Parts: sequence; structure tokens; C-alpha cells
Amino acid sequence: MFNKIKIIPEQNKKYFTGYPNNVCVVGVQVDDKKNFMPAAWNVGLSYNPFLYGVSVGTDRYTHELLNQADCFTVNFFDFKHVSTIRSLGRSSGSEIDKEKEFNLPISKSDKIDAPIIDSAYCTLECIKKNQITIGDHTLFVGEVISITVDKEIYNGEYGTLDTNVISPLGYLGIDNYITLDHNSRTSLKKLPMHYRENKLR
Amino acid sequence: MFNKIKIIPEQNKKYFTGYPNNVCVVGVQVDDKKNFMPAAWNVGLSYNPFLYGVSVGTDRYTHELLNQADCFTVNFFDFKHVSTIRSLGRSSGSEIDKEKEFNLPISKSDKIDAPIIDSAYCTLECIKKNQITIGDHTLFVGEVISITVDKEIYNGEYGTLDTNVISPLGYLGIDNYITLDHNSRTSLKKLPMHYRENKLR
Repeated sequence: MFNKIKIIPEQNKKYFTGYPNNVCVVGVQVDDKKNFMPAAWNVGLSYNPFLYGVSVGTDRYTHELLNQADCFTVNFFDFKHVSTIRSLGRSSGSEIDKEKEFNLPISKSDKIDAPIIDSAYCTLECIKKNQITIGDHTLFVGEVISITVDKEIYNGEYGTLDTNVISPLGYLGIDNYITLDHNSRTSLKKLPMHYRENKLR
Repeated sequence: MFNKIKIIPEQNKKYFTGYPNNVCVVGVQVDDKKNFMPAAWNVGLSYNPFLYGVSVGTDRYTHELLNQADCFTVNFFDFKHVSTIRSLGRSSGSEIDKEKEFNLPISKSDKIDAPIIDSAYCTLECIKKNQITIGDHTLFVGEVISITVDKEIYNGEYGTLDTNVISPLGYLGIDNYITLDHNSRTSLKKLPMHYRENKLR
């Protein structure tokens, strides 16, 4: 039984009730300046075309760069990289070179001018299709033109992430991180549907 | 060491590399018709004002309703409700009354005309501020005017979800669900910052 309270959101307060989110690190480059910023607010937006969104505060240095760039990468990490991801979030590319400061292993993409982080288990290479300012953030919409992923992690057995091999990094707010319990994993694929087969997407 | 492959996204295929996502159930009402749809693609969009987004396929019945409605709820569930959430996703409100079919415990909001699901540990009551069609989905942007949450779950100790009390429902794609490993929870709040205190948000 719940014992529920009502909270009326106040200005300038942050609420973390919708978390956890799977953190990504956005990679962007303008001229010679590369930068990397963790974004808890990242989300799928469309299957066809395959569009992915990252929401970035308008006061962030990464916002300036994404504003000028025409592409970016979205990089996903195992929980073991938690300290690096936190450091990337609690520093600003306007003051330091994050690649050097945190010894990030970086590759060039052969398709777009945005850096790939090699320690990520998965990288989405995105061409910026749109940017929509919503409140104090901008949603950058990218078309995913290439997915780089470890073949053991995204394999035929599941058609989804193999959580036995990888422990994705979840964010709960206020510098709290968590990962998944692989043993809780449940497939309900074989249950009957409630509507007609030909109406399934 | 990774053994990475490159996948070029194909039309009409779905890719689940960015998952898991914390699933919500969107609640909406138009006239006497209530409906409820799980949305893995839900995300924070702004702190100030507090805006939250849900992305819904343009061919969904819930899309029709959200198109007409001026408000909606976003409901979050414990993993123990996995079968109900899956059933809500694999059925259509155009054919059945989901509240009856799945015995959903519903309350009226006193602020907006959208149904609250009482078995959710947290509900965001949203006034629709915008809707943006992006590819084959529409992002419905709501201003959160009230948060209903169990007081044991969102408490002073953390200022975030207490994952010792609640096990949020994560979605991996293709009817695969998972929850968190509370024992992995790590707070990095006390680590030093890399930039000046007065520049922190």
C-alpha cells in the first residue's frame, strides 16, 4: 500500500521522480574543438526514419557546439565507467580539454565529423536534423546513420542488449548512479496479444 | 576488449541499442473515453519550467486522443506490475476498455481532466504545452503541475528514488523487461568538481 503525497513543482527546483535514465555521452566537434557531455535526457524519437534525441541545457558549452555542428555521436557505457562519466558531467569543455583530462580513447567517424568514444559499448552516429528549444533545454534530433556496437552485447539471441555481458549505466539524479539486475530480466514475448495480429506494428 | 560491428540502420527495422528505458504509462481522457498506453520513450525536457515529454507513434489510438486532449498523466510502476504494463501495450483502446479489461485502479485528478493510475508509485500530471511530430512519432510536451508520489519512495534521504523500496520497470525492447540492482547504487555526490563552484547549475 502506498502512502502518497502531492508535490507542486516549484521554480528553480529539480525533481527526479521520472528517473532512472540510461546515461549517454554526447560527442561533438566544431573545427578543432571536441567536447563530451553526459546527457541523462536522451530518447528514441522515431523508428522510420531512425531518429534519436538528446536534450541539452541552453547554458551548457555543449549547447554552443551542437548549435554550430551538423552532426553528433551518442555513446553508451558500462557501469564500470561511472567515475569518468560523472567527471565528464561535472566539468566544462569551455575550461578544459576533456579528452586529455580524462584520457578518453577517441576515434574518428568515417561518415560524420563527430568523435566516437571507443570505451563505449555502443555509439550512434547522428546527422542533426532539427533542434527544438523547449523550456531551458534544446532537444537535438539526430538521424542515426550508423550504429557501432559490440557484437557480443547486441546479438541474435535477444535482438536486444545482452544484460549478461553489459551493465548499462543508469542515472537517478544528484550524482547517484545504478545498474540493472540481470537476474530480473523477463521476456513476455510469447504471451498472447490482446489485439489482432494484422494490427501489430 | 570489445569486438565491435557496424550496423547501417535499415528502413522498417527497429534497433534497441539505446535501451533500457524506464517505462511510463500515459493516461488520457477525451469525453468519456479513457485510455492508457505504455511509452518507453519518455524523457525530461526542461527543469524551469518543469516539462516532460512522451513520444507516441502517429498510428496509435492514444495519439488520436492526445491530439484532442489538453492534458495527460505520466505514471511510473514497480517491476511487479510487468504483466499489466505489457498487456496495456499489446492491446488497443480502439477495441477494448483497458480500465475494465485489466482492472486498473483509477482516480480523477483534481487539477486536470486525465486519469491517475493508483497502482503507479508516481504520477506526473501534465498540461499539454506543445506537440511536435518527429518522424513516425509525435513528442507530446507537458508542463508538470503536480507530482503524486509515495513518500517512502521519494524521500529526504536521497532526494531521488529510494531503490531499496521501489524497483522501477525498465524496458529493453521486444517485450523484454528488467529492473535495477539496488546493491549497485553509488553516490558520487561528494567527489570534487572539476570546475568552479559558482558555475554549477
